[in-house]
Amino acid sequence: MSLRYNRDVDLLRESPTRAVNRVVERFRREGRDVIMLSTGEPGVPPPREIRLWLSEALKEDSMTLYSYTPSPGFLSLREAVVEDLRDLGGFDVSVDQVVIVSGGQASMFSTFASILEPGDEVILVDPTYFGYWNLLSYFKVKPVPVVAEMERGFQPNVEVVNEVVKRGRTKALILVSPDNPTGRILDWDTARALAEIAVDYSLWIVYDEPYRTLIYEGEHVYMYKLAPENTIALYAFSKDPGIPGWRLGYIYGPEWIARRIALVSEAITYNPPSIAQHLVLKYLKNRELRKKHIEYVKKVYMERRDVMLEELVKIKEAKYVKPAGAMFIMVNLKEVLEPTGLNGTTLAQKLLYEKNVAVIPGEFFGKSTKTYIRLSFPTETPERIREGVRRIRELIETLR
Amino acid sequence: MSLRYNRDVDLLRESPTRAVNRVVERFRREGRDVIMLSTGEPGVPPPREIRLWLSEALKEDSMTLYSYTPSPGFLSLREAVVEDLRDLGGFDVSVDQVVIVSGGQASMFSTFASILEPGDEVILVDPTYFGYWNLLSYFKVKPVPVVAEMERGFQPNVEVVNEVVKRGRTKALILVSPDNPTGRILDWDTARALAEIAVDYSLWIVYDEPYRTLIYEGEHVYMYKLAPENTIALYAFSKDPGIPGWRLGYIYGPEWIARRIALVSEAITYNPPSIAQHLVLKYLKNRELRKKHIEYVKKVYMERRDVMLEELVKIKEAKYVKPAGAMFIMVNLKEVLEPTGLNGTTLAQKLLYEKNVAVIPGEFFGKSTKTYIRLSFPTETPERIREGVRRIRELIETLR
Repeated sequence: MSLRYNRDVDLLRESPTRAVNRVVERFRREGRDVIMLSTGEPGVPPPREIRLWLSEALKEDSMTLYSYTPSPGFLSLREAVVEDLRDLGGFDVSVDQVVIVSGGQASMFSTFASILEPGDEVILVDPTYFGYWNLLSYFKVKPVPVVAEMERGFQPNVEVVNEVVKRGRTKALILVSPDNPTGRILDWDTARALAEIAVDYSLWIVYDEPYRTLIYEGEHVYMYKLAPENTIALYAFSKDPGIPGWRLGYIYGPEWIARRIALVSEAITYNPPSIAQHLVLKYLKNRELRKKHIEYVKKVYMERRDVMLEELVKIKEAKYVKPAGAMFIMVNLKEVLEPTGLNGTTLAQKLLYEKNVAVIPGEFFGKSTKTYIRLSFPTETPERIREGVRRIRELIETLR
Repeated sequence: MSLRYNRDVDLLRESPTRAVNRVVERFRREGRDVIMLSTGEPGVPPPREIRLWLSEALKEDSMTLYSYTPSPGFLSLREAVVEDLRDLGGFDVSVDQVVIVSGGQASMFSTFASILEPGDEVILVDPTYFGYWNLLSYFKVKPVPVVAEMERGFQPNVEVVNEVVKRGRTKALILVSPDNPTGRILDWDTARALAEIAVDYSLWIVYDEPYRTLIYEGEHVYMYKLAPENTIALYAFSKDPGIPGWRLGYIYGPEWIARRIALVSEAITYNPPSIAQHLVLKYLKNRELRKKHIEYVKKVYMERRDVMLEELVKIKEAKYVKPAGAMFIMVNLKEVLEPTGLNGTTLAQKLLYEKNVAVIPGEFFGKSTKTYIRLSFPTETPERIREGVRRIRELIETLR
């Protein structure tokens, strides 16, 4: 006899950014310096004022910062989120529609556990955030990819969505905007059409919007406004105010499902990290500081994006769309890769091992982007971004 | 048509401490002061030196404290845990056997998801920590309670375990030591006998030891030493160094299952909170401070325990065992409750509503303890503990 385990866990894969990071760690120990164009890691810490406030609070000999919190988060924080959505989004939700959770991943897990059942079909945009493919496979849900073409600005194809939905097996539609990996913002016409389909066919829209305050051109579309009964929106404080490691986020949606998501959230982590809740509460309550910080971070990232674009234009085979939001540029190198027998994955390996530049291969985001690589611009300085893209060009020149 | 959801989530229940806390919050808003004998919430914050170090680190304009971490935690923290187990437990595990997770609840969830399958049978000691009953029901696992009687010092009954296991359907055995809710420490003979059964029948031992540094009399039994291939040990930093809200813990066990637990942990929270990892790393690395802090906290809690015992002795119908570890006293009030038609649950309600004292009813820990209440002593000052137990006596006097 031997010890048995649940083989479903073998459906789970380590995330590609983590796999890259492990190699990078090894390189660093060997003294090799890697330019990180692989991660959605903010390069700007939370506002100094907020950090200094927390720094003082840590000196107090009390349990205030350390205690358990209610499982759906502090009431005061949920109220601050309601106010933030009202102020930035121009719409109202009740506190009972808001559940604070332990970060973006926990928001995905808790939501999926609450709405999906094995055998369900879920529409995913191809390309989309790699984490979705992995998690849906674990939940034994069938992902139905709907390709979003670069030529259409990576907007999801509404006609194809319509055809899939008509087959009657779709439970939910997962949308990310501003998008990871493409940086596109869902446009109003597409959003309206998708909302209509969701309402007509009683589908969930899982709307992942962690980058919604990082928009450089255009404006964020709140799906919740278009389909309030059908939308579960996911948000994380990882990118804004920049505490990815601290693990804090929230979901908002219809109260009846929010209540259930809160139970799953309690089952997986008991409560969202209290110290992150304290910091974010302070941040959201200081409305002026919050808005100033968003503008500052956008300025920093936009400069980095523009430097990346300036360098990319020098790679004549590179096809990409200027991202209107988020932290990434998806670059199609099909023209130069195909004749050589390479793809995004083998190129990424060469970049990491031969050029000390980390990027994420397109295949992790969907089948349609195997000749792509995803470059991210929030982490490195403009100079290092320039150098990173220069090295990519250098490698590509050897492939021509 | 209406929106469908996964009805399994309706198997989940809010924890009883949270349910009590919601009433307490309401009372507080009404200006009522409640004595909290209901929660396993530490009353001592982390060591001042460590907090001051973190306080300084927050002033740095860098992303060090805020970045994502590897999903199984910082390598340096896993190394510090290995060293801590060697120093305090006298045994060796490799870093690959240690996975840092987002707190005790996440350690339970990740472990269950990795080893249990629907329909499995799992042996639980009755009474045991309420969270286990809830989570097992969600995982569609059949809990098989084995009563641990007060008369036997709450040691699990090995003969009964043996009988259950012989039926051949047992997948795992869940043990908590020092115990929540009884405070008993598993004794060596019982531990050895259970380890033998686990090895003979290829069972998992899920060994929950978050209170192992809070032992007032006796010593901790590391099940891992007795059955290293079969034991998955769960630990949380909630109680020591006292950061329950921050959500940090770890599991250790055979490497092949640890690797899988790490994947589930990544699926639910991506990484354990980075700021908690930084703080705990600093704490564990300072071996002298760590040991001094343990001694200090034990002194504080032992005093509180002893005050509680001093007052309890005045309730002549109260039956209990002096807890050798952890934070709780299980009190059987059968003698006074039975003639009145009350039980632990209705008594707890009366205590909260009529006497402003919060306790947890015994029924949440198992069927065998319906006439019990669990009193916890780490949270309140000795004076308030004295007053709380005095009020319990006052209420009980009206029932005679």
